[in-house]
Amino acid sequence: MPDGPTLAELGEWELIERLGAFAPPGQFSDDAALFNGDGTLVVNTDVLVDGVHFSDATTDPFSAGWRSAAANLSDLAAMGCTEVIGLTVGLVAPGSTPWPWVEEVYRGLKACLEHHGGNLLGGDCSSGLQRSLAVTALGRLERGLGTQVCSIRRGAGLPGDVLVCSGLHGLSRLGLALLQQSLSRDNQDRLPEELKQQAIQRHLQPVPRLDAVAALHASRPAKRLWRVAGTDSSDGLAAAAAALARASGCQALLDHRQLPLAPAMVALAEAEEWCLSGGEDFELVLALDADWAEALMDRLPSCRRIGLLVAAVEDEPPLGWLQLDDNPRRAEPLPLIGRGYTHFS
Amino acid sequence: MPDGPTLAELGEWELIERLGAFAPPGQFSDDAALFNGDGTLVVNTDVLVDGVHFSDATTDPFSAGWRSAAANLSDLAAMGCTEVIGLTVGLVAPGSTPWPWVEEVYRGLKACLEHHGGNLLGGDCSSGLQRSLAVTALGRLERGLGTQVCSIRRGAGLPGDVLVCSGLHGLSRLGLALLQQSLSRDNQDRLPEELKQQAIQRHLQPVPRLDAVAALHASRPAKRLWRVAGTDSSDGLAAAAAALARASGCQALLDHRQLPLAPAMVALAEAEEWCLSGGEDFELVLALDADWAEALMDRLPSCRRIGLLVAAVEDEPPLGWLQLDDNPRRAEPLPLIGRGYTHFS
Repeated sequence: MPDGPTLAELGEWELIERLGAFAPPGQFSDDAALFNGDGTLVVNTDVLVDGVHFSDATTDPFSAGWRSAAANLSDLAAMGCTEVIGLTVGLVAPGSTPWPWVEEVYRGLKACLEHHGGNLLGGDCSSGLQRSLAVTALGRLERGLGTQVCSIRRGAGLPGDVLVCSGLHGLSRLGLALLQQSLSRDNQDRLPEELKQQAIQRHLQPVPRLDAVAALHASRPAKRLWRVAGTDSSDGLAAAAAALARASGCQALLDHRQLPLAPAMVALAEAEEWCLSGGEDFELVLALDADWAEALMDRLPSCRRIGLLVAAVEDEPPLGWLQLDDNPRRAEPLPLIGRGYTHFS
Repeated sequence: MPDGPTLAELGEWELIERLGAFAPPGQFSDDAALFNGDGTLVVNTDVLVDGVHFSDATTDPFSAGWRSAAANLSDLAAMGCTEVIGLTVGLVAPGSTPWPWVEEVYRGLKACLEHHGGNLLGGDCSSGLQRSLAVTALGRLERGLGTQVCSIRRGAGLPGDVLVCSGLHGLSRLGLALLQQSLSRDNQDRLPEELKQQAIQRHLQPVPRLDAVAALHASRPAKRLWRVAGTDSSDGLAAAAAALARASGCQALLDHRQLPLAPAMVALAEAEEWCLSGGEDFELVLALDADWAEALMDRLPSCRRIGLLVAAVEDEPPLGWLQLDDNPRRAEPLPLIGRGYTHFS
């Protein structure tokens, strides 16, 4: 075999880019893939590995199962699916794994499916050194006016679009810190008990925002053609905004005064960083017409206006900016976990 | 967590049965799953783990990729798919894995797709202690007369059906023995070079028999409603015949004199055992009307008549029998790898 870099040297993003070369052009550019001739079916695969995505130290097996389903369904929601068909599971585990652990994982998977629709469709299992779950979810898009299919694509944004997210950010990262007991006693004392419980719940059993897709449909202005750009915030709010900007050839401008932080979290020094880059909140980040955005926020009060898409400036690559005050020129690049963050190094 | 048996104590088959309880009734009873409202779409997930399903000692990375696609497409063929839509890949590998290994795996996956249709649709990757590939394939069934969908189901067999397999068996196991250098020098000398090459090729790059599904369609007698029972022989010919028998509530009677062995393999003491239980030949094993079976064999010369489905006898569980001579009462139970064979212990 010819020499070459290791996966750790490449990093996750470069690896995905290279793997995308084996697929048709553009196939790897969204949260999940459209695959049917009529464009209404969506498939998504996520792999979760013990010690990387979950661990006995922080995640009970029921929650590991719930999370692995929820992460997948969140990608279906990010593509605009209004129906979950179901999922398949490729389970790898050592022969010494107790059946009750597997049973709890599948109970968690099924509980998440029961909340959001869809069935366990099939799967496979094998022994291996380390527990892992490869979950593939199938979902369906609605048709809009005429033959239009109501998909949400990262690249569908236009300058002037309002950026909306479906809920608060940073909670999952706070929940992880609480579960890892890495938060100082001072900081813990500063937070209300209710917020701590909410954060732990958000980390262990995130809710894929299929309800936000339904609200998008219900709030669509009369006779408006479907055009919604979006992604989910599994890699963080900043990375999501930047992904929309890149794919749409715009700049994303997040407003520093509109960060979707739980008010009680502001007491933490890490609050802003976790809101922007904590990741795994599994909210939707959308770019759409201003009047539609207003109607959406009226219908679904958890939705927040967080900024704008603006035209890309010559000599500046399309990406995300954090606007610090009223002056859009006073902005700094969003802290991106994308290029630096990797599961391989 | 309550105490319970380990996965090794349960074994693969009991584990799959228990996992099936989380799915709708019957969902886990075929090679793959129908999932669309109109019943024309099929999904299948297979997990392949380094050291269990492939290894650097016997399988170059191109072949590991080809095999992981082929094993999945074989399950689509076993459901009756005439079209491969594509597949997703969940890749786990240590960060120290060289990129050229991954590149060769994906070249193999893509080469298999290019032979049989379909695209790489998407996927995910993560670091992990051990290399594994979770492949999910999507395929489509044809419609038959009226609203009928032309699926192949394990339970569709009837007494009197002729059992046909799409090709020779035992070759893949022979190929593995040659690659593992576990065949005695005497035995190696006894085999023609061409057979050895064929066996190694069959093991490394098996061909999913989508062509046999096309031949089934082309050979269907005029105005005959679609009814074909079948499965693939990934777990061995005997296990496939027994699976058809069980699901159809019949006995499968394989004829000892019609074992689909390569003539040049007869010289080996292991020939019959490998033919029946070697596994991984990825041929189709079908049960259908006698005239249709004849027409199929005329059209696709690799197809062999191997036996019959007969009515289940009271007090005998439906399973497979090997008939030793003209007398159907002189039969012995097929050696099943199913219940004993497990990836966990």
